[in-house]
Amino acid sequence: MVIYEPTENISYLERTDIMVKLAPKIIIIGGVSAGPAAAARAARMNPEAAIVLYEKDRYVSYRPCNMPYFISGVIRNYEELIVFTPDRLQREKRVQVKIGRQVENIRPVQRRILVRDLASNSIYEDPYDRLILATGSKARQPFSQMTGCPNFFTLKTLSDALRLKDYIRSHRPQKAVILGASLVALEMVEALLQAGLQIVVLHRSDLPAPNFEETGRRLILEKMKEKNIAYHGNIRVSGFSRDSATGLVSSVETEQGLFSADVVLLAWGFEPNVDLAKTAGIRLGSTGGIIVDEQMRTSHDSIYACGDCIELKQQLTGRPVYLPLATHAIKTGRIAADNAAGMRAVYKGTVGTIGFQFFDLEAARTGLSTESASDAGFRPVSQTIRERSRSELMPAAEKMSVTLIADSRSGRLLGANIIGKAGAGLRIDLIAIALQQKMTVHDLGQADFLYSPRLAPLWDPVIVCANVLQKQLETGSK
Amino acid sequence: MVIYEPTENISYLERTDIMVKLAPKIIIIGGVSAGPAAAARAARMNPEAAIVLYEKDRYVSYRPCNMPYFISGVIRNYEELIVFTPDRLQREKRVQVKIGRQVENIRPVQRRILVRDLASNSIYEDPYDRLILATGSKARQPFSQMTGCPNFFTLKTLSDALRLKDYIRSHRPQKAVILGASLVALEMVEALLQAGLQIVVLHRSDLPAPNFEETGRRLILEKMKEKNIAYHGNIRVSGFSRDSATGLVSSVETEQGLFSADVVLLAWGFEPNVDLAKTAGIRLGSTGGIIVDEQMRTSHDSIYACGDCIELKQQLTGRPVYLPLATHAIKTGRIAADNAAGMRAVYKGTVGTIGFQFFDLEAARTGLSTESASDAGFRPVSQTIRERSRSELMPAAEKMSVTLIADSRSGRLLGANIIGKAGAGLRIDLIAIALQQKMTVHDLGQADFLYSPRLAPLWDPVIVCANVLQKQLETGSK
Repeated sequence: MVIYEPTENISYLERTDIMVKLAPKIIIIGGVSAGPAAAARAARMNPEAAIVLYEKDRYVSYRPCNMPYFISGVIRNYEELIVFTPDRLQREKRVQVKIGRQVENIRPVQRRILVRDLASNSIYEDPYDRLILATGSKARQPFSQMTGCPNFFTLKTLSDALRLKDYIRSHRPQKAVILGASLVALEMVEALLQAGLQIVVLHRSDLPAPNFEETGRRLILEKMKEKNIAYHGNIRVSGFSRDSATGLVSSVETEQGLFSADVVLLAWGFEPNVDLAKTAGIRLGSTGGIIVDEQMRTSHDSIYACGDCIELKQQLTGRPVYLPLATHAIKTGRIAADNAAGMRAVYKGTVGTIGFQFFDLEAARTGLSTESASDAGFRPVSQTIRERSRSELMPAAEKMSVTLIADSRSGRLLGANIIGKAGAGLRIDLIAIALQQKMTVHDLGQADFLYSPRLAPLWDPVIVCANVLQKQLETGSK
Repeated sequence: MVIYEPTENISYLERTDIMVKLAPKIIIIGGVSAGPAAAARAARMNPEAAIVLYEKDRYVSYRPCNMPYFISGVIRNYEELIVFTPDRLQREKRVQVKIGRQVENIRPVQRRILVRDLASNSIYEDPYDRLILATGSKARQPFSQMTGCPNFFTLKTLSDALRLKDYIRSHRPQKAVILGASLVALEMVEALLQAGLQIVVLHRSDLPAPNFEETGRRLILEKMKEKNIAYHGNIRVSGFSRDSATGLVSSVETEQGLFSADVVLLAWGFEPNVDLAKTAGIRLGSTGGIIVDEQMRTSHDSIYACGDCIELKQQLTGRPVYLPLATHAIKTGRIAADNAAGMRAVYKGTVGTIGFQFFDLEAARTGLSTESASDAGFRPVSQTIRERSRSELMPAAEKMSVTLIADSRSGRLLGANIIGKAGAGLRIDLIAIALQQKMTVHDLGQADFLYSPRLAPLWDPVIVCANVLQKQLETGSK
């Protein structure tokens, strides 16, 4: 069941480095974020190209970042999470969408993939001129014994979200144990609390929100206490007690005792889904992600990769970093498509801006942590200040925390953490710009920011922090 | 009544360009924002210096930008507007504060000022080593006949605010006519509405909020309609009808008829208060403000100027601009003080970031308008987009407008307008950074911004606008 005939005997357009067919057939594997972005872009950039998108699940083109709000009930229908149905992607973007098909193997020399149709369980080959891997990430799940357990969940795909939502609706669980306290775990803490559950969080570190500096982590812990969420830090999960008849998990086992649970959500972060690439001999990096160049080309001729399955370049260090985020997935998807379709486009890397809301707290970070800055050979110094987000005479003025990290030799800004109430988090974007521009702390302190009592204080907390850090840099004290 | 003996016979510290006394006497004229900032800074930077601050009014060191919120009732006591009382400035900052003293003349050759004690009406001379002019701005008031009219107001000083507040409290006026529709006028529209008055706005242009691009001006006009505020554009004030017995204004006369009023607020903006500088022969610029160099030195030896009485350098054009804002006042006050006290500090100019809140709308701008960009020799093109401020699936997602202006030849970003609901306005700060860094539209479009459904959409409206404008620049269409 080969869908496409090999598109041979077609004239070639010579380019700087590669020979590109005027009408290549481009196959994209993976349908969540990077894949549909790449597919739609390739179809637009090269109207002569044939574009085929493979996805093993039944859903394509949806917004995983919004899934916690579907669990909480803020988003009522799962259809709202979907950007393009297979049908719309096909009609509106000129992409052949093949759902329920698992790509089992890549044959790079023959330029063919081996596909299993999961419905019929039949296998067929499909040839390509260019292949784009957008196989995404998968939830870290070291407890293989829990696969198939009805009340044990991870949250990566829309199918995962639907299963969890269904379980909550039909079984009305009282108590959730959440394993992990990173970004998605914290969003799910709030979502499950809003869905009516009691929450216990078990985390390996003493504080929640790894990747954030201590000030912010403490504020998030305080917020958990305020919301009656039981947080247990420095804890190791050793196993799970399960009902032998139903297979349901009844409690989480740790060296500090048992934690009873009606549902368990494992949220230990994500890792690149690279089984297919690995088997095909495509080079993987130190982070586990596929190595790509600035044009998203892998180590294999005519094979590109994008999205959560690749490692990115951290702009500040030039080093590889694994950062599965929708923005990067879509950006790199488009870059991969441009190049696969015969254009030339490059991706310069990420400064690493992430953030989330946790109840009324906004938390965001960008750039390097003190630790990663040290690792990269910088001599980081940092300052944390707590200042009001608006004129202190305004009722909405609330204190927010800003941490800035800089290199003590050059004064170059390396990273920031911002935690506070409404309006605090988005200030991270101006630090992202400052990092992209290689600004010094001194330059940031000179910035000409908005002052209007209800919107911002005379000196923005970011400016205050920059000036305090600048003084520290000048006096040379740590 | 010379307070300070001339500080002669004191050793000198040679510096690059000037001879600075180790213990100079520094006189500062003007006590609102720049003056106290300069005084406190000079006292701190040179502990040997004698610092004297003159102010003709009885209040020093307060926050004029917060006065509308005192009028509206959000701020209950005028004392909250005061940062330092004369007494506290004296005790805590080591500044001799002389209130109720009008400086009548400067004698640059003799390095003396002529002071009138308004209480005793006596005149005396006071010598200085360094003089800092911080005489601020005054409300534009071409209707000299209205001076002393009990229900005719401008809003510049704390005394103005107290007089207006007092009048509202004691006379319970029903109807306010506000002349003008710029930033302070609009803040006062909201404040007086909140204080219980009906509002009529008379403005010379067809739209409110001059200095903003048309999209934002229309949104502000819509908001006025929504709030039942009568706005009359394209209107000229020809005079005022007054009660011959009481002197009270009863209506505003225009060619479109009479507008009855219980109070009239004239809010036609501010102009530099430079009478003293002019008389002393200090050079004024094309904007009417005092010309200063990067160290805040005027054309006269040993005389510095700062705050609302000077003109600033617009960083994007290098041209003078008049922009009376508290942030610039305090920054330039500190720079003037540093240099007067024997240090060396420079001010590189402003990109011109301003903004305000109008009911639930946040409006902010930075950089050049299309018009001012053309005047400065750029070839401006602009784009305006309206996009949601958060993931469209989130209840708080509301559309906001972003206008970006760039030079069509270089792609350099020249200015921006942002109008929207909560969280929109502060995005102007990242454009301010982009302007400071001379970024191109392309670079801005590549920025690595926060995405988190409740905080920001996948593609921030600023990114969307940059990318639309970039496409326009590439295709060369207008």
